[in-house]
Amino acid sequence: MSDKELVDKIAAEVLKRIQGGDARAAGAGTEGAEGGPTNAAQTAPSPAAGGRATDTVAPSENLAVVDIPIVPSDVAKFIDHTLLKPEATAEQIDALCAEASEHHFYSVCVNSSWVKRCAKNLQGTDVKVCAVVGFPLGAMSGRAKNFETRHAVEDGAKEIDMVINVGSLKSKDFKAVGEDIKWVRRACNRNIVLKVIIETALLSDDEKVLVCQIAKEAGADFVKTSTGFSHHGATVKDVMLMRRTVGPKLGVKAAGGVRSFDDAVAMVRAGATRIGTSSGVKIVSGETAESAY
Amino acid sequence: MSDKELVDKIAAEVLKRIQGGDARAAGAGTEGAEGGPTNAAQTAPSPAAGGRATDTVAPSENLAVVDIPIVPSDVAKFIDHTLLKPEATAEQIDALCAEASEHHFYSVCVNSSWVKRCAKNLQGTDVKVCAVVGFPLGAMSGRAKNFETRHAVEDGAKEIDMVINVGSLKSKDFKAVGEDIKWVRRACNRNIVLKVIIETALLSDDEKVLVCQIAKEAGADFVKTSTGFSHHGATVKDVMLMRRTVGPKLGVKAAGGVRSFDDAVAMVRAGATRIGTSSGVKIVSGETAESAY
Repeated sequence: MSDKELVDKIAAEVLKRIQGGDARAAGAGTEGAEGGPTNAAQTAPSPAAGGRATDTVAPSENLAVVDIPIVPSDVAKFIDHTLLKPEATAEQIDALCAEASEHHFYSVCVNSSWVKRCAKNLQGTDVKVCAVVGFPLGAMSGRAKNFETRHAVEDGAKEIDMVINVGSLKSKDFKAVGEDIKWVRRACNRNIVLKVIIETALLSDDEKVLVCQIAKEAGADFVKTSTGFSHHGATVKDVMLMRRTVGPKLGVKAAGGVRSFDDAVAMVRAGATRIGTSSGVKIVSGETAESAY
Repeated sequence: MSDKELVDKIAAEVLKRIQGGDARAAGAGTEGAEGGPTNAAQTAPSPAAGGRATDTVAPSENLAVVDIPIVPSDVAKFIDHTLLKPEATAEQIDALCAEASEHHFYSVCVNSSWVKRCAKNLQGTDVKVCAVVGFPLGAMSGRAKNFETRHAVEDGAKEIDMVINVGSLKSKDFKAVGEDIKWVRRACNRNIVLKVIIETALLSDDEKVLVCQIAKEAGADFVKTSTGFSHHGATVKDVMLMRRTVGPKLGVKAAGGVRSFDDAVAMVRAGATRIGTSSGVKIVSGETAESAY
């Protein structure tokens, strides 16, 4: 079987599982899994293992070979419905929550000052609250990230998307990069999912691989491509590279620039088990959004 | 005397005082002042009071009427020498400190994970360490900003540049905007200068005025135009508006897009008592830098 056939076959299998509503099998959920988030990620999809980093895989290529019907709503459980611009109002945050609840997105992803409001809005729904931490520069101290995390968890966050200290990585102080992640990991109890944003736009491929390894070692549940506030967001190539690096047991979140159903499917096929986007409603409606995140 | 003549006369007076090395009279310094930073700001320059918001004032206009010789090094004590990009390395931070020390800038302005290193680098010099907090979105919780501030102060920061919660302002929750600033003020003892970044690029003129009033009431020592990470940075018009709003007793910091000596002088003439820029070395050398901050 060629690599291409293998990828197609695995992608079809993943989509079939999503179609069957088995979100956990797609790595979208971890709650209630024995052994906490890290073990839960062991059920992450196999595109992970089968993925090959290559320049030739383009979004929506080979979609026709998937042998089950795919509809945009299939990807809803992959989506962290995201609103991170600083000028977002309470009204917009409430609308975000209502949309997430209506479309059964996996979570809403917000800045930490909105966590309490979202948790209240989403009480009794299947939608979690995800808070960003040290966002978007990642350049605050690890201790400050730890505190921000603890406070967000106290306010009701079930997932934390932290940004690495890119400066430490660029300074080749790899120990500091790991310690910084561990500061946040320590603030997340076993039920809290930790995603580590590596900000691919600022890194070489070697740095991407290295920081994924560091994140895995430091206890991350997911590695995530981007903040959406740097030069570019997720690419299929980066998602493949990250998936290949972390293996099948961790989640990979593609964020930034995922604006259409085709984009989302391409990311999932590349190994993503979560999609961060502000275009979730358009994605599950089969449209293409204009937003940059 | 016309407004224009008044502005020119006052600007000349301010520049004369700087020339004489009386940085405190230009609002650049507060340390050692009795009664802490707020009282110290009472010696801020009077362009403040005389400033009028108008579209017609352009950088470097009327420079010729200033009746004392002005050289670029005059503005050194106005400058927070700034490096905030997330990928900045330890080596670049060290160079920033060395430049600040060499040119006698007022401070270095860095992300909080670098404060300890800068404080060590700058021990025994006249350069302070300024840390940004809740940066650049301002959308983390007030409690998290408080912790980040306390930690930065513990590490050696003498000034804190915090970002307001723009979302609260846009939601017309003015009480929350003030509370957020007070969380940070409480973490700053009397010797720590608090600058409140209002992010003018996201605000209407009415909102700029309102948030300057809120910041003043909440105990800010300075209002500051911009993070340098939004759609645009400081404008002469905004600096004038902010100066007019806060009166002569508070500092006004112009940040973002100040790249040349002419830019810097225009900001000072508009009422700025501090300049945030990554182009300090070029400014005091009389050159124009290419950086956006």
